[in-house]
Amino acid sequence: MPVFLDSASQDFETQFSALLSAKREDSPDVDDTVARIIADVRGQGDAAVLALTAKFDRLALTAETMRFSDAEIAAECARVPRHEAQALEQAAERIRAYHVRQMPEDASWTDPDGATLGWRWTPVSAAGLYVPGGLASYPSSVLMNAIPAKVAGVQRLAICVPTPDGVVNPLVLLAARIAGVDEIYRIGGAQAIAALAYGTETIAPVDKITGPGNAFVAAAKRRVFGKVGIDMIAGPSEILVIADADNDPDWIALDLMSQAEHDESAQSLLITPDAAFGQAVAAAVDKRLQTLERRAIAGASWRDFGAIITVKDLDEAADLSNRIAPEHLELCVADPDALAGKCVHAGAIFLGGWTPEAIGDYVGGPNHVLPTARSARFSSGLSVMDFLKRTTMAKMTPEALKAIGPAAEVLAQSESLEAHGLSVTARLNKLNG
Amino acid sequence: MPVFLDSASQDFETQFSALLSAKREDSPDVDDTVARIIADVRGQGDAAVLALTAKFDRLALTAETMRFSDAEIAAECARVPRHEAQALEQAAERIRAYHVRQMPEDASWTDPDGATLGWRWTPVSAAGLYVPGGLASYPSSVLMNAIPAKVAGVQRLAICVPTPDGVVNPLVLLAARIAGVDEIYRIGGAQAIAALAYGTETIAPVDKITGPGNAFVAAAKRRVFGKVGIDMIAGPSEILVIADADNDPDWIALDLMSQAEHDESAQSLLITPDAAFGQAVAAAVDKRLQTLERRAIAGASWRDFGAIITVKDLDEAADLSNRIAPEHLELCVADPDALAGKCVHAGAIFLGGWTPEAIGDYVGGPNHVLPTARSARFSSGLSVMDFLKRTTMAKMTPEALKAIGPAAEVLAQSESLEAHGLSVTARLNKLNG
Repeated sequence: MPVFLDSASQDFETQFSALLSAKREDSPDVDDTVARIIADVRGQGDAAVLALTAKFDRLALTAETMRFSDAEIAAECARVPRHEAQALEQAAERIRAYHVRQMPEDASWTDPDGATLGWRWTPVSAAGLYVPGGLASYPSSVLMNAIPAKVAGVQRLAICVPTPDGVVNPLVLLAARIAGVDEIYRIGGAQAIAALAYGTETIAPVDKITGPGNAFVAAAKRRVFGKVGIDMIAGPSEILVIADADNDPDWIALDLMSQAEHDESAQSLLITPDAAFGQAVAAAVDKRLQTLERRAIAGASWRDFGAIITVKDLDEAADLSNRIAPEHLELCVADPDALAGKCVHAGAIFLGGWTPEAIGDYVGGPNHVLPTARSARFSSGLSVMDFLKRTTMAKMTPEALKAIGPAAEVLAQSESLEAHGLSVTARLNKLNG
Repeated sequence: MPVFLDSASQDFETQFSALLSAKREDSPDVDDTVARIIADVRGQGDAAVLALTAKFDRLALTAETMRFSDAEIAAECARVPRHEAQALEQAAERIRAYHVRQMPEDASWTDPDGATLGWRWTPVSAAGLYVPGGLASYPSSVLMNAIPAKVAGVQRLAICVPTPDGVVNPLVLLAARIAGVDEIYRIGGAQAIAALAYGTETIAPVDKITGPGNAFVAAAKRRVFGKVGIDMIAGPSEILVIADADNDPDWIALDLMSQAEHDESAQSLLITPDAAFGQAVAAAVDKRLQTLERRAIAGASWRDFGAIITVKDLDEAADLSNRIAPEHLELCVADPDALAGKCVHAGAIFLGGWTPEAIGDYVGGPNHVLPTARSARFSSGLSVMDFLKRTTMAKMTPEALKAIGPAAEVLAQSESLEAHGLSVTARLNKLNG
């Protein structure tokens, strides 16, 4: 059973705070192991990567077979059933159409002092995308990471995906091909992250690494951060559904379970102004949990971290939502747009009862890589911006320097940075002299 | 003497690679100390902050005096000479005008399938800004961090600035007041970062922390990352000047020294197609180093990390610049705009001989918080975006769900995420049934 809270009860604040601060993830400390792996790959390159792949993935590769050949990719892609390939194509097209609109514009203007100012966006030259192996090897994640990179204009996009015992997910290769990925390596773990960051004889280094992974991958990404850019380190998935009584309890139950089935550490929350509706959803969840394929995982998540919160009205629901800052926020109410206006901290909002969160995972268009663990208070989901960087531009004329140079001289002096001031003074002397 | 390189020489590639990979910073490992300080502040709140301030800053504060009162701020601001106040005001106005243009726009559209998609930007609710004490207590940094936050719409902006032995820099307080900072605390070090991240009885927690600091502050920011957002961890400053022979060697020398005087670990590089001009700049630097107030610092930086590189033409200069990915790039050539088009990795570009980098430090308008240590390959300077986050929005109609829901069902099944698929199926059944 999940926890039931009522905002009208006396100990609500205590219970809600406990819910907010519940530690859902208990990552093993693998930092020492990862540090050794990274040092090995930096020191020995391919040889270290191959030895570690033999050890962890029980797979004997060579420098030549580390990378999937075009023929291998084509052969795997041909194994994908037609309806799956079509679904991937449709998803890719929608994701691309959404992310193309995110491309920011350059700017340049001349201000009243005569200074020409602006900025310019340019893509990261090379990016690496990590794709987990085994159960969590999701083709949808390949699309969600690779398409923004290619839309941004990244020239070289390399994927690392482990293939334990040689088992390949053909859908991952097809998704990579559809997204325009340039290189695919069958390596994984911290050794793959190290190879992407520092390069080996076979793998050229990249500038930015994104994508999900296990504790080893996450620790490796933290360690190489600075040498390369990384995306967020994602925590377990979360959904908050705000629903009034005018919903089918089974739909809401399925939406809650679609997060819970990801991971025992996932969190599914329902806020409703109608206590009876909350009970009906709980009953619908229990019924679905009898038959769901992943009922063991979903049931554990729901039991340990699920909650149904009754509130007095939707304004209170929005206030609580802002304290939760959920990764996914589903608004199943009569006027979802009005409620969305009040929910200011959320990774992604799904408006109305016809928008199950799962649409966003696959085909909606927006990215499904989103801030978890309350970080939507200060961060955003993956976008083309993650594969671009901005260079600011400034150009003075002699007149502009006359207008603003003296202030720079004064401030440089006040900060005791004499050469700063003199670099302006020398030029002004020429103009005035 | 700096190192002299010539791209035509046989061992150039070796020398240039060595220059690129030179380790300029040797941060002490203070992580254990910082971990203890953070734990103390989380456990004991104000009491820990006050004890640590007494210890490190030799300053006896109470919970009441930890924060500058409005009267104290007004009294300190009144001490600032009029010409300095005016320079700060002019700088603030220009920085504000530049950053206002960075505000991104919300978007919403309905696509051919009937899905309404878009995104919305909202500000971080509360931000904290760290300002170092002592010599590196720069009022310009206050403006550069605080103004983007306020332009973004951050409601609550708190500054922590240590005042060792009670010594206050009135310009810092005035800059804070001009920028619209809401709270100023006279505390510093890892204890200030911990207080901002976790809160104490006196200081409410914030969502994002920015600003420069020493090794303790940097380690504390790394540790609280995740609980709050942080800006980059900046390394020592750098400048690359690309200059042809048609420049005054003394101007270029001063530009190089304006980075070198920051820090013995700073790096100043000149690339020129004219070897004789390079020698002339070296001579001009030597002359300036005889009289500069900060000649000890600037001289050490120039000796240990400075370089003058002769190239065959400006195209080669652009190629080397892209490998360096400098924080500051100054283009003192006949057609700086054309050359800027080829320099794709740089934090900020200063175009033409009338635009000394120091203009950008104070009054140009663009931000002076910029990516160091080659990270301009994948990251950008501080901007209003650092104080905003994006929420993606999606709203399906029944027709849209009919059009794209089936693809989501197929992909959910292919990823063995049954509840994801069922959440779509249940709705489609209602529509079809």
